[in-house]
Amino acid sequence: MEIDVLRPNKKYVICAALTGAATMKDQNPAVPYTAEEFAEEAYRCYQEGAAVVHIHARDPQTGLPTENIDQIQRVVDAVRERCPILINLSTAIRAGVPAEARIKPIEVIKPDMASLNTGSMNFALINRKTGELITETVFENTFAMLSSFARVMKENKVKPELEVYDLGHMENVRLTSLQGVFEEPRHYNFLFGIAGGMPFSVGNLAQYIAGAPDGITWVATSIGPKLQPVCNMLSLALGGNVRVGLEDNIWISEGVLARGSYEQVALAVKMGSTIGRGPATPEEARVLLNLPER
Amino acid sequence: MEIDVLRPNKKYVICAALTGAATMKDQNPAVPYTAEEFAEEAYRCYQEGAAVVHIHARDPQTGLPTENIDQIQRVVDAVRERCPILINLSTAIRAGVPAEARIKPIEVIKPDMASLNTGSMNFALINRKTGELITETVFENTFAMLSSFARVMKENKVKPELEVYDLGHMENVRLTSLQGVFEEPRHYNFLFGIAGGMPFSVGNLAQYIAGAPDGITWVATSIGPKLQPVCNMLSLALGGNVRVGLEDNIWISEGVLARGSYEQVALAVKMGSTIGRGPATPEEARVLLNLPER
Amino acid sequence: MEIDVLRPNKKYVICAALTGAATMKDQNPAVPYTAEEFAEEAYRCYQEGAAVVHIHARDPQTGLPTENIDQIQRVVDAVRERCPILINLSTAIRAGVPAEARIKPIEVIKPDMASLNTGSMNFALINRKTGELITETVFENTFAMLSSFARVMKENKVKPELEVYDLGHMENVRLTSLQGVFEEPRHYNFLFGIAGGMPFSVGNLAQYIAGAPDGITWVATSIGPKLQPVCNMLSLALGGNVRVGLEDNIWISEGVLARGSYEQVALAVKMGSTIGRGPATPEEARVLLNLPER
Amino acid sequence: MEIDVLRPNKKYVICAALTGAATMKDQNPAVPYTAEEFAEEAYRCYQEGAAVVHIHARDPQTGLPTENIDQIQRVVDAVRERCPILINLSTAIRAGVPAEARIKPIEVIKPDMASLNTGSMNFALINRKTGELITETVFENTFAMLSSFARVMKENKVKPELEVYDLGHMENVRLTSLQGVFEEPRHYNFLFGIAGGMPFSVGNLAQYIAGAPDGITWVATSIGPKLQPVCNMLSLALGGNVRVGLEDNIWISEGVLARGSYEQVALAVKMGSTIGRGPATPEEARVLLNLPER
Repeated sequence: MEIDVLRPNKKYVICAALTGAATMKDQNPAVPYTAEEFAEEAYRCYQEGAAVVHIHARDPQTGLPTENIDQIQRVVDAVRERCPILINLSTAIRAGVPAEARIKPIEVIKPDMASLNTGSMNFALINRKTGELITETVFENTFAMLSSFARVMKENKVKPELEVYDLGHMENVRLTSLQGVFEEPRHYNFLFGIAGGMPFSVGNLAQYIAGAPDGITWVATSIGPKLQPVCNMLSLALGGNVRVGLEDNIWISEGVLARGSYEQVALAVKMGSTIGRGPATPEEARVLLNLPER
Repeated sequence: MEIDVLRPNKKYVICAALTGAATMKDQNPAVPYTAEEFAEEAYRCYQEGAAVVHIHARDPQTGLPTENIDQIQRVVDAVRERCPILINLSTAIRAGVPAEARIKPIEVIKPDMASLNTGSMNFALINRKTGELITETVFENTFAMLSSFARVMKENKVKPELEVYDLGHMENVRLTSLQGVFEEPRHYNFLFGIAGGMPFSVGNLAQYIAGAPDGITWVATSIGPKLQPVCNMLSLALGGNVRVGLEDNIWISEGVLARGSYEQVALAVKMGSTIGRGPATPEEARVLLNLPER
Repeated sequence: MEIDVLRPNKKYVICAALTGAATMKDQNPAVPYTAEEFAEEAYRCYQEGAAVVHIHARDPQTGLPTENIDQIQRVVDAVRERCPILINLSTAIRAGVPAEARIKPIEVIKPDMASLNTGSMNFALINRKTGELITETVFENTFAMLSSFARVMKENKVKPELEVYDLGHMENVRLTSLQGVFEEPRHYNFLFGIAGGMPFSVGNLAQYIAGAPDGITWVATSIGPKLQPVCNMLSLALGGNVRVGLEDNIWISEGVLARGSYEQVALAVKMGSTIGRGPATPEEARVLLNLPER
Repeated sequence: MEIDVLRPNKKYVICAALTGAATMKDQNPAVPYTAEEFAEEAYRCYQEGAAVVHIHARDPQTGLPTENIDQIQRVVDAVRERCPILINLSTAIRAGVPAEARIKPIEVIKPDMASLNTGSMNFALINRKTGELITETVFENTFAMLSSFARVMKENKVKPELEVYDLGHMENVRLTSLQGVFEEPRHYNFLFGIAGGMPFSVGNLAQYIAGAPDGITWVATSIGPKLQPVCNMLSLALGGNVRVGLEDNIWISEGVLARGSYEQVALAVKMGSTIGRGPATPEEARVLLNLPER
């Protein structure tokens, strides 16, 4: 893909990733567990300018991520009742959930969008000073899963967000696209900085972009208080979209916990305004991201 | 150079390029011509957060760029009287000025910094839709000039800002550095988008960075209302410094003329704040940019 | 790593990968199954200029790859008796072998070198025209395995060949290296073109090189009759080493089966001669690849 | 441009640059000065596999490069009489020749191809250990010249070889192409390693390729006994064409002068054979390089 910065996209889509699979209330009390909390947090993000929320539903008692369809449905219903923000459901859910349980909510609930992981990899937490391994899992995303998840999404008019953690994942998508399982143009999330995936560098970002087909939409994402804003800024500068949220970063500034994902949404809006770009509404996002008609 | 975005520079230096050689009052009436106008504009930039002003002095009557040392001295004196902002003088001045007249003001006036152009090139204005040539000059910056200008700057404790318009210019600097004419670490201005030089792309920025030695300081610069803010944002995201000013861009937002370079300084400060970075004072800039002691 | 092509390495190491886990006699009858066949094939490669053989031992009856230590020992003994070529054992062996069985031969047999896979990934065979999946496995190489295998190799003075299939794998190695489990400088195999890993492009090769630490040794490898020679040539041009063999490519030219890996060794020697480089002897390879003293 | 190494060009064009502007008989006595010497040298190159000769005609007495049209005509006639090799004339000729005299031979003689320099730059000889400047010139190639030379070539059905020494030159060509002065697809010479232009690195080669339009033909070129063969090998591996000759390199191997450009042609043929590629005849080259019908 060639990016023509002389013809910038004025509008960009902010997606707020409210929870992820790992962030807990003891790290930041604003992480939602119950459907009501999800709805409230989504609403605040919507008010600040987010057009999409990315959701890993939680068990309302334990706060752990859950593949329970009733609970996921409750969360989605509560959010939809509260505001017209678009819904992007996770199909990663958490380590160890079998493939069928990962894709089932998509068929049943038919969200606007869903994450679609594009390759197997180590997914680890590592002490970056000592190299010591803290925890890890092998995150399984086979070609067979990529293809079958994509088919389910296409049939149910759910737009996949293609999660690429490395250049091989870009190629996995390209090869799988030959089967005709994706609606074009595709939407990519270029990820950086997960132990097991590609580290961040501007040259690595350039390779993601160089390897992407023309016409796609994209966002660059990373985790942590330093890399998340860097990725936001690069996305904004280069015509991409923006993802924020407590899933990736529990802070709003150095040493200060975010009161909610919505504070990061507001910061992204401010950031975008300094380069003349404004956040899309959910209806505008639907057009910008080429979401199928429902 | 490898950029470690996990250890970002909190502070960054804003340089305001007040005039350039080409921007005239009929394009934007805030372009300073007289010493008093330079001083007033520099002061406003200083108040908004700039630590450096880049100056092409003008003939106070005609507004044309001038190599007249008395006039340059008047401008520098007026600015210095008004506020403690650092002064970066141009050694490009304007097309057609001989080498001796380009470097002479550095010896006489001894500014804090000075631009040092690092390679010969076409310098043109081209209609980007039709390819039609509007105007051009061969901008002469021989190896001999690069080396001799660098010596004069070193002897006079003036920090060169190495203007690189292409990858060959990076190599010109590397080769010339073997003569020992530069104080280390060096300061680079990575330029994009001049017809005759490297166009902007994130891959090209990555190649500038890949080719730069460790430890340098840098800013990425372009011209025009679209590319200048893109370069500002990339610089801020990646730990660089920022250059704004009417030399590069006469606008503050789409269709709205900047009331002065200072409005762009203020915008850069706002941009930086969204990633937790703040502008350096002139004294802090002196340390950050490794300026020689005076 | 910066490559200084003005100071090229005159000598380079040819490693012949005799079998791999998948290539069978019905594809090319020269694939060795028995210890005697391995010894004969290794000898021919040695005579043509190879300094290292990479070995996946086979069950002499079925020809399938085996983790049976006695059989691996037999193969190694037979090769060592025949000629002084260095031995690089696989620790991948084949899909489904548990970690302990993968590393055990290294402890017992103590080859000169061993492959060390550096990240989990899909490892698939895909129809490149239709995108249809033919077969796949999740190739598990966790951080825990990377670290523990590296420790075993260090204790047994076996030089790891770090198999990197993507940029994330480079980072996995960097992070793990902080534990001090590798002897420096390290030796890398930059892989391209496996479905699941990074595809080949010259920009991707540039990113591998850009991300590698200074002072390492390396080889670029791919599979198939078109990509393997491309990688050989790029390695030779850029100062790297060379890997050939029936594991990666059963052909010697279009439509002509190689009579053995040795024919590809001879071709690599011819290729190197056209750029003034010659193959290292096993003793020279020991020095070039920084193998530990035994 | 994306290079698909899975669909390699079997044939490639070898161009032998017999003289250049600077190489003299006291460096290598095989450098031709007289028309007869040019014809003989061209014939030998043709016999070894070259399809094109690149010619800077010389004064037969002094051996200095000349813009004298009669002499250039004599050289071209002598070559054409001797063998059907294609003729690529220089429009650089030598430092200091005015634009009209540089393009005039193209109009009059109408060679098959001609070099077309695409940007102004320093062109220097520098001691690479000390950085000391030995000699330099400002090589003027304005946008106006690029455009008018291209028009003359188009009118006279002469195929331009676009000489790019840096990424800015790629952009100069792109901008000028909007005027419609080039026949498509274009032919590029990606140059490396001239003091004043882009240095060689595999990342820089990747940027040249990334910035080139789809469908072009190309060759990568450098000078000196180390870089010329590296560029030949990279060109062959990546599907490009090859340039050799005493203009760029007077040696055939370390410390051994080439007996003529033809020895380097033979070496390139050997190099290509190791990757299954063979040299094009002049008639095949006409097709491969999209030369206009005459």
